[in-house]
Amino acid sequence: MVHDHIDEHRSIMKPHAITYRPIGVIHSPYTRQDGTPIQPALANRAAGTVEVEPQYVEALTDLEGFERIWLLYHLDRSTPWRSIVVPFLDDREHGVLATRAPARPNAIGMSAVELVSVSGAQLHVRGVDILDGTPLLDIKPYVPQFDAFPSSRAGWFDRSDVRCSTADGRFDKGTAS
Amino acid sequence: MVHDHIDEHRSIMKPHAITYRPIGVIHSPYTRQDGTPIQPALANRAAGTVEVEPQYVEALTDLEGFERIWLLYHLDRSTPWRSIVVPFLDDREHGVLATRAPARPNAIGMSAVELVSVSGAQLHVRGVDILDGTPLLDIKPYVPQFDAFPSSRAGWFDRSDVRCSTADGRFDKGTAS
Repeated sequence: MVHDHIDEHRSIMKPHAITYRPIGVIHSPYTRQDGTPIQPALANRAAGTVEVEPQYVEALTDLEGFERIWLLYHLDRSTPWRSIVVPFLDDREHGVLATRAPARPNAIGMSAVELVSVSGAQLHVRGVDILDGTPLLDIKPYVPQFDAFPSSRAGWFDRSDVRCSTADGRFDKGTAS
Repeated sequence: MVHDHIDEHRSIMKPHAITYRPIGVIHSPYTRQDGTPIQPALANRAAGTVEVEPQYVEALTDLEGFERIWLLYHLDRSTPWRSIVVPFLDDREHGVLATRAPARPNAIGMSAVELVSVSGAQLHVRGVDILDGTPLLDIKPYVPQFDAFPSSRAGWFDRSDVRCSTADGRFDKGTAS
């Protein structure tokens, strides 16, 4: 019976589109990609707010005990995906799935931000590298045992000399050529 | 002009469904949730393979230099979302967005797995806590500077005595009541 279930699953997988609905919206000081920090670690603790829809407020219960949370969101203003990109943090080309660039096949962004406080449907966060108005898909607590591998080798990133901390418009569908 | 763009975006955001398509599939030894490791850190280095669709092979270029990668995937066999859950790693209730439980509003799973090798469209990985046949949404390189916060305070998780390492069927739509 387990096998039946899996076979059925596999046969429908390829054409199957997966639909999500935003559970809220992320507000930040950044209204365009050009000048937005590239990652929370490079965001100088910029403040932002996350506003969840009313039906998800109860689901936030006990989140305030976590120092840091993952925000998963839809990169709604990115250029279409492409296989090879020059990421912000290098001057060489890499496969897009070997970068954190937004021009991905499924434009899902993911940031570990500091959680300052929770007040009803609003989360106050710091270290935001996300455009204002970005649709929120998920919130997960940051758990060091699952998420923190501080000595993990990081390929081209470890070798790059490029240490800019803000984006330009290269992946912005409003400004990219 | 930036403002026009953002206003247009906001006005369509709430009803807007976001559609993704799997870029591949994750294979693992686990065919049902009951008995599957809860997180890669608890998975005893279980081996798995990730198979991407042919059109995404070029996008993997230079991924092999990373010791660890994030897999984002659709939790396709989870129960429907609910606000309050008792997670595997505690005996008390918490809001689902304050847990890593699969019964989330948008059923996106996220695991930092070890990357063993890349061979064409196949990635060999270790530390898999994912059901066999799970649709893959995204791959991101694990970058300690962005992802590793080893001393981050982790709320109820830090206080829980429950230290099981495998799931039962409580969030499995095939077995949960």
